[in-house]
Amino acid sequence: MSKPLILISNDDGINAHGIGVLIELMKNLGDVVVVAPDSPQSGMGHAITIGNTLRLSETHDFEGVKSFQCSGTPADCVKIAKGYVLKGRKPDLMVSGINHGSNTSISVIYSGTMSAALEGAIEDIPSIGFSLCDYALEADFSHVKEHVLKIAEQVLKNGLPIGVALNVNFPAKKQEPIKGIKICRQTRAKWLEEFDRRIDPTGRQYFWLSGSFVHQDKGEDNDEWAIAHNYTSVVPVTFDLTAYHAIATLNKEWDI
Amino acid sequence: MSKPLILISNDDGINAHGIGVLIELMKNLGDVVVVAPDSPQSGMGHAITIGNTLRLSETHDFEGVKSFQCSGTPADCVKIAKGYVLKGRKPDLMVSGINHGSNTSISVIYSGTMSAALEGAIEDIPSIGFSLCDYALEADFSHVKEHVLKIAEQVLKNGLPIGVALNVNFPAKKQEPIKGIKICRQTRAKWLEEFDRRIDPTGRQYFWLSGSFVHQDKGEDNDEWAIAHNYTSVVPVTFDLTAYHAIATLNKEWDI
Repeated sequence: MSKPLILISNDDGINAHGIGVLIELMKNLGDVVVVAPDSPQSGMGHAITIGNTLRLSETHDFEGVKSFQCSGTPADCVKIAKGYVLKGRKPDLMVSGINHGSNTSISVIYSGTMSAALEGAIEDIPSIGFSLCDYALEADFSHVKEHVLKIAEQVLKNGLPIGVALNVNFPAKKQEPIKGIKICRQTRAKWLEEFDRRIDPTGRQYFWLSGSFVHQDKGEDNDEWAIAHNYTSVVPVTFDLTAYHAIATLNKEWDI
Repeated sequence: MSKPLILISNDDGINAHGIGVLIELMKNLGDVVVVAPDSPQSGMGHAITIGNTLRLSETHDFEGVKSFQCSGTPADCVKIAKGYVLKGRKPDLMVSGINHGSNTSISVIYSGTMSAALEGAIEDIPSIGFSLCDYALEADFSHVKEHVLKIAEQVLKNGLPIGVALNVNFPAKKQEPIKGIKICRQTRAKWLEEFDRRIDPTGRQYFWLSGSFVHQDKGEDNDEWAIAHNYTSVVPVTFDLTAYHAIATLNKEWDI
């Protein structure tokens, strides 16, 4: 039996530590092909490159693995992998990450890591985005390896419901091991933006976006709760943004 | 009674024809403030600017309207409007567009127009993205004005369910008038990518992303059906990506 074909991408760029960890782990499960951004793409959401060209070049950074860097976004990487690099072969699994930083809660919508996974799901490829809730460049990934393998194995074995990808977040390394894996819903929360206004040397204003996280959700079935209690969170996510519950409301209330 | 405060943005940039049409219409309903990208941002998805600065400057392009152009993405524009320009005043309505081109179906996930509307919804502002299914720069918007006003008035009057924004698409102008407004769900569809590989003058390869739309959904309650039958489509959308139906499946199937 041939080994599963596993496509890997990320949003921190092909030189990030997290993707190296993921590649080493996935080599245990199948034949790995990497197509990742040539530079960091954090916060790119589901951006794609329209009206501009894409570069793609083979790298030789990972032993025994075909790898390519692309000038585009994470979503572009998945598209060019499927449409060009893999020449029609469909991956059995697409994994993205491991992201340096959390993609729980509302962050999923800004996340390049998760846009790669959702792009995989759009293509009917079972897809997972992995993120470590630790922003340090030198973050320790050693405690998450067992769960990365376990979750990838479950998806290879069972597949995923149609149109569904997984948003997996790991707590930062603590003294005690991670307690387990929780299937969760997305936490209701938002960022409270602050804009730091400054003046450049020519006298013109510019701004730095910063902000703080506002937790709006006391549930114990959400991903923020899981991470805060030292569990790995798994949120099944979809690219169907329809708010089905609102259809009846609009049909009832509106005078159209 | 003071007039409603209406925030306007888009993704085609502040100089696009569509935002001019929207501004003129909204002036009938309230006090308008515009914060829009200084250049086209199509396909930016829900990208935000991290690790880079933002520029913001006042323009005087629209009579009787405070307007600003921003160097960032559509989501950045809404954030800087809320966090800086409006100095704490919360808009009663946020509208984005009118986009030059369709944002039906899976396009919602790549759409800068809709990311501005979803960013408004995250901030609990009733928000609407408007798109015209006509990519021509000189597209005719005359037939959509009545529906833009009608939908905005309904939202000002009734509000929207919490966490819900509207994705509104209009059919391109035809001989007969638009038949009516349909509340819809997002069509299941995808883009089949093709990559046009070329060689630059220095001998290096580059690619143009192109593709064709693959309709995967025979329903008559979706937005593609509505547009094809000359109706305005209204899809309520959410930033909660949780695939709730999959939570039980994973809890049952997985051995974790």
